[in-house]
Amino acid sequence: MTFTESEITARLADYVVSSRPGDLPDSVGQEALRSLFNIIGCTIGGARHDIVDRADMSLGPFSGPLQATLFARGRKSDILHASLINCLASSVYSFDDTHAQAVVHPAGPIAAAVLAFAEMRPVAGAELLAAFALGVELECRLCKGISVPPAKGSMAWSGTGVTAGFGAAAAIAKLMRLDITGMRRAMGIALAQAAGLRAMHGTMMTPMMPAQAGQSGLRAALLAERGFTGGQTALEGRYGFLSVFCETPDLDAIAGGLGSRFEILRNTYKPYPCGIVIHPIIDACLQLRREKGIVANDIAHVAIQASAGTMALCNNRNPQDEMQAHVSLHHWTAVAFIRGTARIQDLDTETAVKDPALMAFQNRVEATLNPAIASDSAVVTLTMADGSVHECRIEHGIGSASNPMSNADLERKFVDLCEPVIGAARTRELVVKTWGVADLSDAGELARAAA
Amino acid sequence: MTFTESEITARLADYVVSSRPGDLPDSVGQEALRSLFNIIGCTIGGARHDIVDRADMSLGPFSGPLQATLFARGRKSDILHASLINCLASSVYSFDDTHAQAVVHPAGPIAAAVLAFAEMRPVAGAELLAAFALGVELECRLCKGISVPPAKGSMAWSGTGVTAGFGAAAAIAKLMRLDITGMRRAMGIALAQAAGLRAMHGTMMTPMMPAQAGQSGLRAALLAERGFTGGQTALEGRYGFLSVFCETPDLDAIAGGLGSRFEILRNTYKPYPCGIVIHPIIDACLQLRREKGIVANDIAHVAIQASAGTMALCNNRNPQDEMQAHVSLHHWTAVAFIRGTARIQDLDTETAVKDPALMAFQNRVEATLNPAIASDSAVVTLTMADGSVHECRIEHGIGSASNPMSNADLERKFVDLCEPVIGAARTRELVVKTWGVADLSDAGELARAAA
Repeated sequence: MTFTESEITARLADYVVSSRPGDLPDSVGQEALRSLFNIIGCTIGGARHDIVDRADMSLGPFSGPLQATLFARGRKSDILHASLINCLASSVYSFDDTHAQAVVHPAGPIAAAVLAFAEMRPVAGAELLAAFALGVELECRLCKGISVPPAKGSMAWSGTGVTAGFGAAAAIAKLMRLDITGMRRAMGIALAQAAGLRAMHGTMMTPMMPAQAGQSGLRAALLAERGFTGGQTALEGRYGFLSVFCETPDLDAIAGGLGSRFEILRNTYKPYPCGIVIHPIIDACLQLRREKGIVANDIAHVAIQASAGTMALCNNRNPQDEMQAHVSLHHWTAVAFIRGTARIQDLDTETAVKDPALMAFQNRVEATLNPAIASDSAVVTLTMADGSVHECRIEHGIGSASNPMSNADLERKFVDLCEPVIGAARTRELVVKTWGVADLSDAGELARAAA
Repeated sequence: MTFTESEITARLADYVVSSRPGDLPDSVGQEALRSLFNIIGCTIGGARHDIVDRADMSLGPFSGPLQATLFARGRKSDILHASLINCLASSVYSFDDTHAQAVVHPAGPIAAAVLAFAEMRPVAGAELLAAFALGVELECRLCKGISVPPAKGSMAWSGTGVTAGFGAAAAIAKLMRLDITGMRRAMGIALAQAAGLRAMHGTMMTPMMPAQAGQSGLRAALLAERGFTGGQTALEGRYGFLSVFCETPDLDAIAGGLGSRFEILRNTYKPYPCGIVIHPIIDACLQLRREKGIVANDIAHVAIQASAGTMALCNNRNPQDEMQAHVSLHHWTAVAFIRGTARIQDLDTETAVKDPALMAFQNRVEATLNPAIASDSAVVTLTMADGSVHECRIEHGIGSASNPMSNADLERKFVDLCEPVIGAARTRELVVKTWGVADLSDAGELARAAA
């Protein structure tokens, strides 16, 4: 700690405002690109989901001029509505990204905001990518700084909901080239709207909270640009954000090492469309099935040793619908053994969640807490009908920080998500354009290619 | 306490859904009418304020179809934008209303939401008034229930910000005639967006937080109407609203005596455009000036004995702009003695806040805490240049619950606010139409008369 709490908002604002092209290390640029690439695939993959349809039908009738693309929905809307709908699509399958330490899914709200804004006011691809990286960085830092156990807030708040608006406001204010006063105003206005409760877990509001956060960040920057004031010290001021969202915020996590430590480097991308703490279990099941030639019908019992986080969030047998299935380790264990997959198709309420074979298999699955197991690890032990036993231990699940998705993995995921929605040819075009975003003279091309 | 926490959301939803025309006592209908009348005057009075212009210029370019009136701004917009802008106008002068125990300014967000909605889907005046009353009731109850000292939140949160969305969602869902499941969804979606920090005190976000809350409540009901889910127990569920916004919520204040105890009966209307805890001081100063023929130049020293709330919020000498002047007892003491008034004109940054005579007079004003003094009381003691002393004690300031504004007072305030903006003839028409809202077959007439 080399600074006082009173300098926090100013430090962060100054860092974002004074950051120049080229200031971000190559590794940060690369991770920003991977984060953006992953979330664009998720956005198109979720674009025609029923939840997105409902939100667009509910709120679309009040949207404005046709400024920005609703990804893969065949129409445009104003940038505020587009940022909401595109972010909602990006997180509707719980297939997005995770900064595990900060407990945040960072890219969706920032990406949706900057991509919509770039269609209204053209910016170069490199500039968009840098603003996106800075927004994600601030969001992850703030969320990490308030995710301090045993603060009640570390579980009760939706981390993405309460911090994504701050990150999105910073990213948009950067694209607007606001000065430090404007940047601090944008941050304050966004923080005054920080919201999101984890009581929404398993409802349609789970993906809506990040969407509303990103939209509110965009709105905050638009207000700040017109001189709207929202305090200069909204993080640390009396009755400010930090005082109400956390007992003892980790100030160093929030504002220490700016420009040298980058939280975006710890962002990870989901290989499966469900709660990240289920992922190592799926890895173990698929590996057993593949390597031992296991047939589901021959399994008598599945014993799972799981982490505390897995047990707290995802020990839910017999989910009743898609949103509940996102957080049921029993569902995904059944899917892995019976279908040998873990895809968005395996979330469908009628054909998967209520599939009698999958439902029945869940009764053979039992998870128990093993406190020695980390959240990216799992041990799965099978007892077969013939009495034989097979075991698989996963140390670091695919897609975790210690076993990251490669660029090829990300591209496969992108193609799997996009092809059913926009076809092979346009998917190919978008893959190339997205990997090459830093070379685009007009970043708006990206959204238009995703129309 | 005759119920458990687990029934709270269901109880409130059931109460609102099952309330029939005629269930509300006459006294409640009267107070709802007074609340609506007062806030419509405030809305028109603030409609052309610079802050409203900034917000409309910032966000108007993204608004949609011309469905609802922007009061006294000569144009229409979609209902979501209209609810935001009209509520912002209603609170921009801090001249609205207050439920002192709940620490909330209840009418603005609910009124702006139901009035905009009624222009899109016609409802009878009596139905609109009843829905407004129910929304205000729920908002006041929820805010009172979380304003429990010494909870940090009782000061740190913007009470109106975090509870008005809940009230607005209930009012709109009532007008939509949603069933109990839909009502609970609307409430949950609104609570997931509950936001507002008192760190914004003295900035343009002070009036914007209620505006965003009301808009988010309207949006929540629109989503719920399309079957969007947001949990059925958002208030009391694990990680729900009550658990994060308050240490020990007063459950009886929130859900006890529904249908027999009415918090809306304790709503009060501001006679002066500033923090309500300054009001008794202004009363004392104006009374001394009037009754003793005091001339400001003859005053050597003004000693004010003030309540703890007054000292905490408004002991601010030498404000620099209008938003700061709202919360400066020194400014209003100078205005009262020098100008003999306490009007919105006395807030103007150039002609009032920076008026050298007013600024100089503030140096003769000194406030000290008297813990025996209630927040609607004050003692002002003048020492004159000739050594003589005058004192005035106000037990209950004008407009407090114990000394309420009469209907005639409210009408005078309405006329003072509206005439400079829309002229005498249209003001007269609107006065008649607003007092008679319960007889309108189409409540949308009200907003159209305020165009």
